[in-house]
Amino acid sequence: MDVRPLLLAGAWRAPAEPAGSFRAEDPATGEAIGPAYPICGAADVEAALAAASAAADALAATPPARIAGFLDAYAQAIDDDAETLVALAHAETALPAETRLAKVELPRTSRQLRLAAQAVRDFAWTEPTIDTAAGLRSHYAPLHKPVAVFGPNNFPLAFNAVAGSDFASAIAARNPVIAKAHPSHPATSERLAQLAHRAVRDAGLPPATVQMLYDYDRALGLRLAGDARLGALGFTGSRAGGMALKAAADAAGVPACLEMSSINPVFLLPGALAERGAALAEEFVASCTAGSGQFCTNPGLVVVPDDADGDAFVTAAMNRFKAAPPGVLFSRGVRDGLQQAVEALQGWGATCLVGGTSAGPGYRFRPTLLQVDARGFLRHPVELQREAFGPVSLLVRTHDVDEALALAARLEGNLTGTLYGATDGRDDAAMARLARALRPRVGRLIANRMPTGVAVSAAMNHGGPWPSTGHPGFTAVGMPAAIRRFAALHCYDHVADALLPPELRDRNPGGIARKVDGRWGTHDIEPGAMP
Amino acid sequence: MDVRPLLLAGAWRAPAEPAGSFRAEDPATGEAIGPAYPICGAADVEAALAAASAAADALAATPPARIAGFLDAYAQAIDDDAETLVALAHAETALPAETRLAKVELPRTSRQLRLAAQAVRDFAWTEPTIDTAAGLRSHYAPLHKPVAVFGPNNFPLAFNAVAGSDFASAIAARNPVIAKAHPSHPATSERLAQLAHRAVRDAGLPPATVQMLYDYDRALGLRLAGDARLGALGFTGSRAGGMALKAAADAAGVPACLEMSSINPVFLLPGALAERGAALAEEFVASCTAGSGQFCTNPGLVVVPDDADGDAFVTAAMNRFKAAPPGVLFSRGVRDGLQQAVEALQGWGATCLVGGTSAGPGYRFRPTLLQVDARGFLRHPVELQREAFGPVSLLVRTHDVDEALALAARLEGNLTGTLYGATDGRDDAAMARLARALRPRVGRLIANRMPTGVAVSAAMNHGGPWPSTGHPGFTAVGMPAAIRRFAALHCYDHVADALLPPELRDRNPGGIARKVDGRWGTHDIEPGAMP
Repeated sequence: MDVRPLLLAGAWRAPAEPAGSFRAEDPATGEAIGPAYPICGAADVEAALAAASAAADALAATPPARIAGFLDAYAQAIDDDAETLVALAHAETALPAETRLAKVELPRTSRQLRLAAQAVRDFAWTEPTIDTAAGLRSHYAPLHKPVAVFGPNNFPLAFNAVAGSDFASAIAARNPVIAKAHPSHPATSERLAQLAHRAVRDAGLPPATVQMLYDYDRALGLRLAGDARLGALGFTGSRAGGMALKAAADAAGVPACLEMSSINPVFLLPGALAERGAALAEEFVASCTAGSGQFCTNPGLVVVPDDADGDAFVTAAMNRFKAAPPGVLFSRGVRDGLQQAVEALQGWGATCLVGGTSAGPGYRFRPTLLQVDARGFLRHPVELQREAFGPVSLLVRTHDVDEALALAARLEGNLTGTLYGATDGRDDAAMARLARALRPRVGRLIANRMPTGVAVSAAMNHGGPWPSTGHPGFTAVGMPAAIRRFAALHCYDHVADALLPPELRDRNPGGIARKVDGRWGTHDIEPGAMP
Repeated sequence: MDVRPLLLAGAWRAPAEPAGSFRAEDPATGEAIGPAYPICGAADVEAALAAASAAADALAATPPARIAGFLDAYAQAIDDDAETLVALAHAETALPAETRLAKVELPRTSRQLRLAAQAVRDFAWTEPTIDTAAGLRSHYAPLHKPVAVFGPNNFPLAFNAVAGSDFASAIAARNPVIAKAHPSHPATSERLAQLAHRAVRDAGLPPATVQMLYDYDRALGLRLAGDARLGALGFTGSRAGGMALKAAADAAGVPACLEMSSINPVFLLPGALAERGAALAEEFVASCTAGSGQFCTNPGLVVVPDDADGDAFVTAAMNRFKAAPPGVLFSRGVRDGLQQAVEALQGWGATCLVGGTSAGPGYRFRPTLLQVDARGFLRHPVELQREAFGPVSLLVRTHDVDEALALAARLEGNLTGTLYGATDGRDDAAMARLARALRPRVGRLIANRMPTGVAVSAAMNHGGPWPSTGHPGFTAVGMPAAIRRFAALHCYDHVADALLPPELRDRNPGGIARKVDGRWGTHDIEPGAMP
């Protein structure tokens, strides 16, 4: 079997006992493209775990500046290789090359790595905390164990297991990464891993700092997730996949950072519709159909007043959906899953206004609007919150704010929740009530803009309450908070200065921000302040 | 059945369908003392969950100053009631009234509540983070769901489910608490809950902010832990108990903050023993026998060089253990568990040097020293790390630092790890090597002092790698970090100032420390800085 090699223990190696092979497909045609990639067996997973575990202490002891250097160099290599990476990603995902991949996703990927490098250099993620009277010093530190990163299908670059936010976060915390690439874009992942591999070598990091597998059978994935040698796992993907990995990880005491499903409720208030309904329809349709709707923050549930302005909004959205070409989905599996979800939503009482069916060639699906009234929604609130991953949204028509509030009260945990109100203040009271209802149910509360487009910012929360993620206190995007997911809290009790990490020593020549005796500052500590 | 009432939904109520009753015992005699307490049934657990869930939003919306006022008033009530609380706790636990309960544990309990109040007032736990260019503001916020707190047997006040660190942390984050008191000290817990109840009423908090149950059967405890209405659970206790609750919580997506077992390895280096061996023996024995050894940070494993100074240390420790009276344990169950653990350790090759057996009256156990050589330890490293909860320690004799390092490499995750070295520097090289080996395996690395005595400090970590706790990034002690365990990350994306929580608004009249555009400061933000 002639298959591409795996990145294991610092080298590109033929799989030891492959269970089979697969090729990528062009989702626009359904035709196989590119070389064959291995479905690896237990021996390769074991090799990755052993090599990463052996490298963990050395990586943890690596000077942070060298880690930052790696992250910056890798970011630059990605920028320099943009043309090839975009071409590969476009071929494997059918995402628009220019508008999405080249202009948005690739720059976001390298920027994220550079922000991680910055957080490494300024030590922000370590939160150095010193209590001079008690003789205690603590900070967040490496796990000293590998992190397994399971990448999703929908961001071949910015959430790629070997280049995305989980990867950057885990490496910034000086943990080796075992990357499980998503099998829908193996050539993109291989190219990224080649760049990462060279950057690891050039930076002099332990060779097993970055490893990559393409695919394995389900049982092997669960075995990896449940291996106690892991320090943590990062997963982005479906709820079913995340739940299975979480169960395996939980049983072994491995913290699982999961980013699963979300339908991202959007509430349009009457004043906003009266004021700018046509513009809102345009904004909504652009958000719901971009990337064929395959975003974790896709607006999958839109609450629209059941009045004339609401009708006008729905009509305008329907017209735009009808006019839009079928969106190309990432794979046969995504298409079939979407078809099932759309049918299930109809089975629970939603009416199909536009679309609802797949199309050819390849894995296309017609932009789809479903509709249900609030009473219908409230009869099956769980079933009607099923995520339909693709260019699909369920409109829920409400008679008044109270009905919208009743609906909000039944929402599951989501990554985002959005409120649109009028600029003249007439919706303010309703906005305030809905904001209170939505706040505990979403990670990011948004006003007057669509949820797609997740800014990479220290103040971002790309997380939310269960079951949108596995823990409401963690974010998958935004440095330094995302790094702390993959860190251990380390305390030093009366330990001599020479044995402390740089950010906890008396002298602070780098001007690191530290919380000393309750106040943030960058000053030195008097030697001998330690009792 | 005449039993004491439960604190449910703001009132002291007779249990609805009790499954039975129990009384406390005086561990010094084994005799039942005090009134009968209910073993509650499913109806009471359901009532607690329903009331707490209904109160969660109101509590989250309560002004932080009022929460802080409650915490301070409760702390004062505990101080004012010290005599009664100490007498009850002494009767139920046999812990020394004056030296331990009155002078150490009670003041620690009220201080912890006051530090939580301070963290509420200065908003430190919320970590306000603002990115003006991106229009994003985030902070840690209430879960809007109740937290179930399961208290341990060994700190009737400072870790009590209705007064300890988990309680203070959950309330500081404005989450209702369902306290599950430990059944070995019901009267102490009832008294604390009475004080808390009054303070809740006086502060005008939602009545169901604090509720308390005494006991239930195991299946009901798992049902509570696995109820999706919970926002989190906090548990301090045995590994078996923690693991069972975690499995139930994991399945429901409830984050479980666990503080389980730890043997707290202590390494005595040759120079330290040569320099001050007799003093170290005294220090070790005091730490291992205080509170009858029933501390999560009890020095349960001591690594001693196999040389003349090591022999002298062991002889001195043995003499002190022999001279010490049998320690009173908390219960029959603790005593029987300890007996089993001591026998199991001997079964895996440890020799009993002193003690090893229980004694009467009540639940006493002789201070016990076990010994094994390093090779013997390394033959059964997992079995010989079994926690023996009581005045027991296993001495491991090593020929050289390499053997000590080999042992360190096999250690499970622990709360603490301690190194003793000479003051003249002759142990420094070995200290550095051992510190590197211990660091990833412990939450708190200690130099030249025993692990017992956990300072309540912002720089404390009372946590550690699995299986000492459920997550290496969380600490059970130390504000504000302990509070963040029970918090959700909330982001606001272009949300109007009026809808923001106080610590994220443009104006910052309270001088709250916030991270604005990458730097900590207390300044206002220009209105209109939000794009």
